[in-house]
Parts: sequence; structure tokens; C-alpha cells
Amino acid sequence: MTKITLDPDRYFSPHSATRDAARELYRAAAHTPIVSPHGHVDPRLFAEPGASFGSPAELFIIPDHYVTRMLYSQGIPLETLLEGDHRQIWNIFCENFHLFRGTPSGIWLTEELCSVFGVEEKPNASNADRLFDALSEKLASTEYSPRRLYERFNIEVLCTTDAATDTLAQHQAIRQSGWDGRILPTFRPDAVVNLDTPDWKENIDRLSEVSDVNVVDYVSFIRALEQRRTYFKSMGAAATDHAALTPFTAELTSEAANAIFQRALKEDANPDDAVRFTGHMLMEMARMSVEDGLVMQLHPGALRNYNEVIFRKFGADKGADIPLQTEYTRNLLPLLNKYGNDTRLTLILFTLDETTYARELAPLAGHYPALKLGPPWWFFDSLNGMARYFDRVMETAGVYNTAGFNDDTRAFCSIPARHDLWRRASANWLAGLVVRHIIDMDEASELMAEMAIGLAKRAYRL
Amino acid sequence: MTKITLDPDRYFSPHSATRDAARELYRAAAHTPIVSPHGHVDPRLFAEPGASFGSPAELFIIPDHYVTRMLYSQGIPLETLLEGDHRQIWNIFCENFHLFRGTPSGIWLTEELCSVFGVEEKPNASNADRLFDALSEKLASTEYSPRRLYERFNIEVLCTTDAATDTLAQHQAIRQSGWDGRILPTFRPDAVVNLDTPDWKENIDRLSEVSDVNVVDYVSFIRALEQRRTYFKSMGAAATDHAALTPFTAELTSEAANAIFQRALKEDANPDDAVRFTGHMLMEMARMSVEDGLVMQLHPGALRNYNEVIFRKFGADKGADIPLQTEYTRNLLPLLNKYGNDTRLTLILFTLDETTYARELAPLAGHYPALKLGPPWWFFDSLNGMARYFDRVMETAGVYNTAGFNDDTRAFCSIPARHDLWRRASANWLAGLVVRHIIDMDEASELMAEMAIGLAKRAYRL
Amino acid sequence: MTKITLDPDRYFSPHSATRDAARELYRAAAHTPIVSPHGHVDPRLFAEPGASFGSPAELFIIPDHYVTRMLYSQGIPLETLLEGDHRQIWNIFCENFHLFRGTPSGIWLTEELCSVFGVEEKPNASNADRLFDALSEKLASTEYSPRRLYERFNIEVLCTTDAATDTLAQHQAIRQSGWDGRILPTFRPDAVVNLDTPDWKENIDRLSEVSDVNVVDYVSFIRALEQRRTYFKSMGAAATDHAALTPFTAELTSEAANAIFQRALKEDANPDDAVRFTGHMLMEMARMSVEDGLVMQLHPGALRNYNEVIFRKFGADKGADIPLQTEYTRNLLPLLNKYGNDTRLTLILFTLDETTYARELAPLAGHYPALKLGPPWWFFDSLNGMARYFDRVMETAGVYNTAGFNDDTRAFCSIPARHDLWRRASANWLAGLVVRHIIDMDEASELMAEMAIGLAKRAYRL
Repeated sequence: MTKITLDPDRYFSPHSATRDAARELYRAAAHTPIVSPHGHVDPRLFAEPGASFGSPAELFIIPDHYVTRMLYSQGIPLETLLEGDHRQIWNIFCENFHLFRGTPSGIWLTEELCSVFGVEEKPNASNADRLFDALSEKLASTEYSPRRLYERFNIEVLCTTDAATDTLAQHQAIRQSGWDGRILPTFRPDAVVNLDTPDWKENIDRLSEVSDVNVVDYVSFIRALEQRRTYFKSMGAAATDHAALTPFTAELTSEAANAIFQRALKEDANPDDAVRFTGHMLMEMARMSVEDGLVMQLHPGALRNYNEVIFRKFGADKGADIPLQTEYTRNLLPLLNKYGNDTRLTLILFTLDETTYARELAPLAGHYPALKLGPPWWFFDSLNGMARYFDRVMETAGVYNTAGFNDDTRAFCSIPARHDLWRRASANWLAGLVVRHIIDMDEASELMAEMAIGLAKRAYRL
Repeated sequence: MTKITLDPDRYFSPHSATRDAARELYRAAAHTPIVSPHGHVDPRLFAEPGASFGSPAELFIIPDHYVTRMLYSQGIPLETLLEGDHRQIWNIFCENFHLFRGTPSGIWLTEELCSVFGVEEKPNASNADRLFDALSEKLASTEYSPRRLYERFNIEVLCTTDAATDTLAQHQAIRQSGWDGRILPTFRPDAVVNLDTPDWKENIDRLSEVSDVNVVDYVSFIRALEQRRTYFKSMGAAATDHAALTPFTAELTSEAANAIFQRALKEDANPDDAVRFTGHMLMEMARMSVEDGLVMQLHPGALRNYNEVIFRKFGADKGADIPLQTEYTRNLLPLLNKYGNDTRLTLILFTLDETTYARELAPLAGHYPALKLGPPWWFFDSLNGMARYFDRVMETAGVYNTAGFNDDTRAFCSIPARHDLWRRASANWLAGLVVRHIIDMDEASELMAEMAIGLAKRAYRL
Repeated sequence: MTKITLDPDRYFSPHSATRDAARELYRAAAHTPIVSPHGHVDPRLFAEPGASFGSPAELFIIPDHYVTRMLYSQGIPLETLLEGDHRQIWNIFCENFHLFRGTPSGIWLTEELCSVFGVEEKPNASNADRLFDALSEKLASTEYSPRRLYERFNIEVLCTTDAATDTLAQHQAIRQSGWDGRILPTFRPDAVVNLDTPDWKENIDRLSEVSDVNVVDYVSFIRALEQRRTYFKSMGAAATDHAALTPFTAELTSEAANAIFQRALKEDANPDDAVRFTGHMLMEMARMSVEDGLVMQLHPGALRNYNEVIFRKFGADKGADIPLQTEYTRNLLPLLNKYGNDTRLTLILFTLDETTYARELAPLAGHYPALKLGPPWWFFDSLNGMARYFDRVMETAGVYNTAGFNDDTRAFCSIPARHDLWRRASANWLAGLVVRHIIDMDEASELMAEMAIGLAKRAYRL
């Protein structure tokens, strides 16, 4: 029970012909380099050659809201998990490792422990201290430094996510260090574009500062954003990323946009202003993408910081963001009518509302030249989530209108496990098509290569 | 074609390794006692030692709206089914037994006929009379009395659902009878809490009467409810149950609540009053649960008595309640912000909108210490409904944030079949995880015991 | 890779016992005549004995918006696809045939090429010209005339879809030609009932003309519609068909309906008028169906002509209709309360929002005598779409409350492939019930015959 065994056929259908086909497809793609076009790894990890991941609690638990939310849901105080002694945190995690049975976190953690760190036992109360010591020792060694693991993981390119106001100092440091890992920034302007961001005004001041454009009105705001995009692009950025409560889009006149912007500067904007301004700025961002070629990503539908008590005590990203029903058809109409037919644009859509896969997103992606569908996101980046995505998206959108995989993670060491899961799930799905004679093995092999790496590279123009 | 054969591996995957694992898991749990924490069995059946189920039509057809709705949908008048001669009703049922092919009713009825009553033929036009006679004879014997079947079914505890104004006389009679079956009441205050209940005012008068609190305003209303909860608890109640059109929650000031309550007493409340009052009372019920420890159940989303013709002629619960799209994320925010972090509360959520499983309910249950997810409800208490529930809930919520099974039935004799179906479905789901190497057999065995009985006992504090 | 092989067990589960059962069930139904109760084939094809399908591009590509949308989504201009040289269009299609991998179009096209036209290679860049020549030759021969294929396809009846203002001249020509194919019209009044139809007023003028009723007000409008229904019925029509943005229904007084109608005649109706008038007219159409026995079909939920650029340049039905979230429970309440209990009415519901299958449509169809559920529609007329439909609808609605299959296609030569796919999917679903011991093989055989042809014939009264 306590031993970790990573079966070579894990996650495949148990049916023998399907499994055999899946295994064959998977093997051909298993060692393809990892392309990670969207994620949240801290570039600081790669900026200094001597950077390390810290303690096992710092690597596996404290920053991973998938892990802390599950422990919290069973009554373990977040204070203990986030602010306690690291060995104690690790012990609590090990005692409760059974909570992750059947969850994607359980899969990623098990694979990471075993494949990356050579741990051969499932964590539990009695081996917790021993594992803590063994992992601590490894984490202190240079063999387990971020750069060394980047190379060992066979990563071809890793995109981070960076505020519009970021100077990209870490990315500059990486470039200047001579290390040849490819860490690229992604332009994420939410904190200056969404007027209801806490500290929006300070963010605007910071935008003025880093862009050298004095942002005093809507026109200078747009100019500053264009400056930042140009800078990000010069630093290697391939894409932008946009979070919004909904995918609402609608263009304002410059005058109307400026009026809202001025109200916001006077801290007098109302909630409706924020909605309309975000909806307008998504149109503007699409326009800029048409012009500068940065791929546009849209991640709508999370009600962030849902648990006020947790947000006040511990801040954002603590496992208390809850999805909302999301509508794409009507909301995206203005943007798609203006830019959807333009092949210079690539807009990659994500969702936390799986009901939109077959009903809205696949029909849209199967029509518009500018649209691609991103992989299953967040809660749905799981075996079942992937299976549902393949089932509901592919028939209508076609594989070639999807954007491959991205891991979207801040947990760097989980990246190989996440891509491996996607490749296994893809192989298994394709094998299911082969054994039912929907496609043949040659076609499946071509699609496998696309799903493992080709689609992502092309969609993100990497 | 006419013979009933209950295959020992029924409902398992036909794939041999999966089936073998499912069988092994199922066998270990198949004879675990039944814990039934939520249902609608009439306690009167157990109050008198000589109680009986009546005719085959009274047992299998007349009170079972799953059965009558299907016959009605094919054009058989409800008058015939509900008010006709019992032998004739039984004959119509048998002639139309093919309508239940592939439905959960078909499974339950078949199993009940065979396992409980020893019937070995599927009902049809030619054996109808013979079956009627055989069943009638059995139903008249003491061997088939409710108490004897309770014991034969190996039930550990059976919770009924009782109005807040119920004196629990039947439950008292059971206790005083010296019979040692454990039949517990559940506090369901909908008829006094939802202002738009027909006869609400009479219900309030009745509440005054049974509580000995003269309900004349909001404060005395709350006092009366607290009195009833204390009384139910003294009679063994473990839980409360709340139906609402939506899961809307929002706290009112006492003054605002009282103003609405006064309008209702004057029969002057408007629909919006009813919505706001129910939303407020759900908050109050959570507060009381924090204080008295009764587990709170919420069953929203059914538009009851949809078919006006049927409702006027035959009353409620005739198979014409239709689900509505339901929103939990925003609706539950006030309640969860106030009580969701409190480990003294257990709130068990149910849904008739499966789109909320993965999108809203699993993320919420995977975060809040006070939340658990109830099993698939009503139309979804079926093989496919369970498979979808496992598929969409477990990865994100984790098994340990679910509440096991409850049968929610008024059909006492179907209880073993329903729990058996859940146990088979659970075993089959776990076997699927084992053969795909997501969990191992030891882990599956532990989870199987939880799903069969452990989770329900802990969630309901039984 | 390039060879087309139509495996005899294609689309069945690869599990051997399931596949064997599916094969046995399928074989018994594979050669049952085709009943096509709803579709969009042009009756002109059958009106003249010498009619032909034109070039391969005219048959397979230009009129098939499933095909053109996929090519367009990958950046191929619609101008090229719709207005180019036919051989060039065909070449582009062949070069991009890989885009259809895993899609229903891929399945239909492959089967059609192989089974109907004897093509044994998958289209690609190098065989494109050769295939074009071979297909052109066949299409020019009388063996491949529409009437000869109708006979070869073993079609028992084929229903077209015809505007309320259509004179049915083509249908008259078919009747008068002495050919004994059964091509029936279907009454579709959307263009006169939905006030926001482009050219609505001209349509009303045309209605006056063809009905010989001078339509000047609501009363004469209703009289004209009744005249047309009578005429369609005299020409063999079995059904009506209604598209609407939503399934909203609500009865207006005659006065209110007339006031809206008068505003529309003066081109002064507002969007809300159009919504209310359509909602009222659906009630009126149900009333007329009760009286004249025409089966009523409702196809709501598509936002048509979504892409304005495409609509302006190329008109309707170019692959740019996008589904919307759809609500049935509340929207249909008025209609069902008035007519749902009337066994003289058959109302067949369709959806583009699969979330309504289990939540709304199956509970409604499992209760109302007048309701049946149509098969998976449009984007969901696919292997996965059918599997989801079986999974979510059948347990609650029961098989006998569904309406079998309809192909809903304008692509006449794809009809055998589409019905074959449904029969295979049905057989596979039933086989899954058999091997899990939910039904036995005799029951499955009866259900198979129903799903292949019986349910459709009975639901459409053919």
C-alpha cells in the first residue's frame, strides 16, 4: 500500500487492444521536449544559478493552493499550513495524503516525488520525517537546482506570466547570465486594465514609470500599453494573457473610454464602468495583437477571492477562487465580428465552464480563423477533465483548431508530470478512435505528435 | 425473455480485470448494514407492529411517482393509475413494464420483485394476475411486515423527513413500542419558512400550537423554530432538510425580516418577499446548526407542481416536478462567508443541475470545511447519474468531501436495491481507478468502505 | 494510410462481448429501410428524372457548411471555397482532408465516398485530380441520379422542409411524374411567424398570394396559416417545424397579437414585439396541431448568421450559426400547461444545449403525453453526441418517449451514412446495457428495431 509504483501503462484504458495502441502512440511522444507556453513559474528561480526551491514544504505545499485547499477543506487551519514550522507542515501533509486519492494533485505529487526525487513510498504519518530529511538533502544539492531540473526535464521553452508593469529584470538577468534555457515573459495587463483591481491607481503610476509615458488619460494609457507590449516582445514574449470575470466584449468610443478612465483616476468609477472598460480593453488588446502579432489568451470565469475571511488573512490564490457559469456566444460577438476573420490574430480561449465546450467554444473555434481553444484549464487539467474535453470539443472544433497543452502551473517540478499526463490522456483518446476504426494508426500518430508539441508551438508561434 | 436473472456481476464493466476488481470491492461491502440518512419513508409503517404495505398496487405503483409519470407519459390517464381498481392498476403496470427498460425504476422494481418478493418473471400482460395474487398473499403475511423487512434488510438507521410542525407521534410510538429499529426524524421546516407555501398561515398557527410559542412576529417565529429543533433533537434527529427554488442566501436585519413576516401574516407578502425571506432563513438555519449541531441539508432547484392540471386534480408529488438551471457560486456566497469556515457546521448540498458538479459544487466542497456534497439526487440516482457524479465531482472535491449515499425514497422496499446499486456503482468506479493505476487495491478497499457506509455516518454524525 | 477501409465493426466498443452483441443487434437493423422524417434535401432533385448533383465540389463541398466552415477556420477564404473553380475547390478539400479526422463530417464523407461512389482512397493532394475525374464521371451517369440513389439507399420516406409560402410545385411535380418515391413536405412558417425575419413583409405578401387570403391583420394571418397547413397536409405533410431563438411561449390576447401584427406591417415592431409574437405563435401552432394532427417540431437555440462579414458577403447557412444556452422548463410552461396533457398533440423537442438533456428535457418527456425528444441535433449528430444523448436522456425519459433518428441534412448522399452511424451507435449503446445485465438480448433486439425505424415512424405518424 505504501509503495509508489508508476505502472508503464498507467492512465490508459485497461482494454488490451486500446492499451497497446495507446502505449505505442505515447512512446513515440513521451520524450518529445516540453513546450510550456503558459504558466506561472517564478523567473527568479532561473535568474540566479544558485537559486533553490527551499524546504519540502516550500516546494510541495505552501505555494500550491490545490494542496492547501484540500487540507483546509478537512478542517486543518490555513495558519498551520502556511505559517507553521516546515517540518510540521510536511508531517500534516503526509498524514493526510489519502485525501488526494483519485485527484490530479495526487497524481502529480506522486509522480513528482517518485520521478523527480526518487521517493518510492507514498507519504504517510510514519515515513513523514524520513521523507522530509531525504527531500531536504536533495533540495539543498545543486543537482536539484531549478536550472539543472529545467535541463533534466527536457524543456524547450517555458513562458512565465508577468504584469504589464514588470520591468522583466529577472528575464534580463537570465539572458545576461549566459544560461541557454529559454524562459519567455507573457504580457498580462489585468492589474491596469481591470479598474476594480485593488491598488489600480498605484499600478497606473507604476505603468507611467516603467513605460516612460505619463499616463493621464485614455490616449496615454493606450500608448503606455503599446510601449510595454513592444518591450515584452523585444524580451521574447510570444503572447498576452487576460483574465476577466466574463468574456464580455464591446467597443467604446475613445471619448467614452476616456470618461471612464478619468473617473477611475479620480477613484470615482462604478462597477459598471469597470465591466465596460474591461470589455472595451479586450477589443483593444485584440487590435494590438493584430498589429504586433502577440498571441492573445483569454481566461475568464473565476470569481476570485471568494472566501473573504481567507482573502483578508492570507491574500489571493489560496484555493478559494470559484468558477461561474460563463457565456461566450453573445459576449464575444463584438470582438469576433471585428477581428475574428483576421488571420493575423490568434485568440486562444479557455473556460471554467465545461458546458460551453460543445455548445459554444467548439462551434466558434470550428468557424473563426482567428480562434483556437486552449486545453482544459485549472480544475479540469485532470484525467477526466481531459477526457471530457476530447469528447466534447474535438468532433466539432477539429483537433487542428485546438492549441495543444499548457501546464499553467507555478509548481515547476510538477511540469513533467503534467505534460506526461496530457500525453498519456491524448494517446489513450487517440487509441480509442483507432480501435473503433474512426481513424487509422498513421493518422493517430500524426495527431499524437501535434497534441504533444506541434499544436502548441504553432498556436503560440514559438 | 420473461425470466428475471440477477447476474452477480450486474452493472459492472464487462472488461474482465475491471469486473474482477469491482466484484472484489463490492463483495467486501455488499453486506455492510444500510445507513439511510435521508428519505421519505412513512414512520407510521413502523409505529404499529401489525402495519402492512397494502396491495401490490399500493406498494409498487400508486405512491411511486417515478412509476406513474412514465405510464402517464405514454397516455395512460392518472385517474386510472391512482384511483382505479388495484388489480386493474397492477395489470396496466405489467402490460407496460417494457417502458422501464434501461431506467433506474426498471432496475429497482426488478430487484425488489426478485430479491424481496421472490418473483422470478418480469411482469407482463399474461402473468399480471398471477403475480398480483402471489404478491398479495405475501404482503398479507407477517413475514412481509415493515418491521420484519427492516430487520431482514439489515438497516442500521433510517431517517424520515418530518414537518417542523409534526408532533413526531409516530416516532414516539416506535420508541415506546420497545422495538429496537432505529427510525430517526429529520427537521424540515419548508412549510413554515417558505412564505409562498399553500396554507402557510395555518402552518404558522400549527407551529404556535406544537411549540407552545405564540408566533406573532419574527422573534417568536425564530423562538418557535428553535423549540422545534430542540424537540426533534431530543427525539434523535441528526439533521435538518431544506428545499428551496434556488440556493439564494442573504441576511436581512431582524427589522426587515419582521416586516416581511408581518406582511405574510396579513397575507400581503409579495413573491420577492418570499424569495428574500427564504434566503434569510437559510442563513438562520445555518446559524442554528452551528449552535445545535444538526446537520443541514439543502435540496434546491425543482420547480414543483409544474403541471397545473395534474396538481389541481391529484395534488403534489405526481411526477411533475421539473428541474431548473441552478446557480450556487454567487447564491451561497453570503452563507459561506458567514458560516463556511466554521467546522461546527456541516452543510450537505444536493443538485438537480449536474452542470454545477464540476463547475461550482466540487470546487466549493474542496475548499470549505463546512461543506460536503450529497450523492446524486432524484433523476440522477441512477447508474449513469452516479457515473457522472464520480467523474465530475471526485477529482476536484476529493472523496472525503462527499457524504456517501442516501436513498431519498418513500418506497421502503426499494431501499436495499438502491443501496446495492450505489455500492455496485462505487465498486465499479473504484475498480476503474485501480486498473488504470490511479489508486491501488488497498486504497480502493478503504474508499469502498467509506462510500458504502463510512462517509454517510460521519457526514450525518450518526 | 491512404486506403479507406470500412471495418464491419466500426464505431462499436472494442470490448469483445460488447462488440459481439452490438454487431448482432446492428445486423438485424442494418438493412431496415430508411425513414427520414426531418431534413433539408431539395425536392427539385426528385422533381425531374434527369436531375443531377453537379460536380464533386457541388455535391460534397459548396453546399455543406460543415465542410466549408472547417476549411474556413483554417484560413482558407470562403470566396475560394464557394466561388472558385470546382476542380480547384476539390483540390483544396483533398489537401485538407486531414482536418476532418475524428469529426462526424470525416466519417460521413469517408463512408459516402466509399459506399456510394466506390472511392477506396482517402482524398489527399496527390489523388485529388484523379478522384475529381472519377467522381465527375459517375455523377454524370444516370446510375447516380437522385432518384436512382433514393432507390438504392432503400429510403421509405423522405421529408423535406418547406416555407409556409412555398407552392410545393416541386412536390406536385414529383407526384405527377409517376415516380413512386415518397417525398413529403414539412410546413415551416418561421419566415412569416418570426417578425424579425429579413423581408418579413414581402413574405406576408407572398403568403396572401399563395393562400388566397388577404393578410391584413392577425385574424387573416391565422386564417392564411391554417389554409397553408391544410394544403401541406393534402400534399402529404406529416409535420411542421419551428425554429426560434428560444423556446419561450406565452399566449397573447387576439387584440395584443393584432396590435403587434399591425406594428409589424407598418415596419414599426420592436425586438420585444418579435419575441412575444413568436412565443404566442408557438402556442397557436400547438393549437393547430391539436386540431389538424400535424406533428410539431421545435428547434430552438441557434444564434443564426453570427458572423456579420460572412452573412453580408455569402448569406445564411455558411457555418456561422452558434448555439446559445437554452432554457426549456420555464419557457415551455405555458404551452405545456395548455396542450401538454393532450394526446392529440405530438411536440418533438430538439436542443443545441446538451445540459438540458438530463435536467429539463428528459424529465419533461418522461411526464407529458404530448412530448417526445428528437435525436441529437446538428453539432451533436455525431458518435459522441449520440453517446451523450443516450447516457443523459434515456434513464429519465425512457426510450419510448424519444423520436428515433432524423438526419436533418441537405446532403442527400450522406443520408445512408448518417442513419448507419445512428444504428451502429444505438446497437453499441444497447450492447452496453446487455453486457452489464441491465436489459437482456431480447429486450435489446426490440429496442433496436424501435430505434432504427419504429420510434420515428410512430412519432411522426408516418
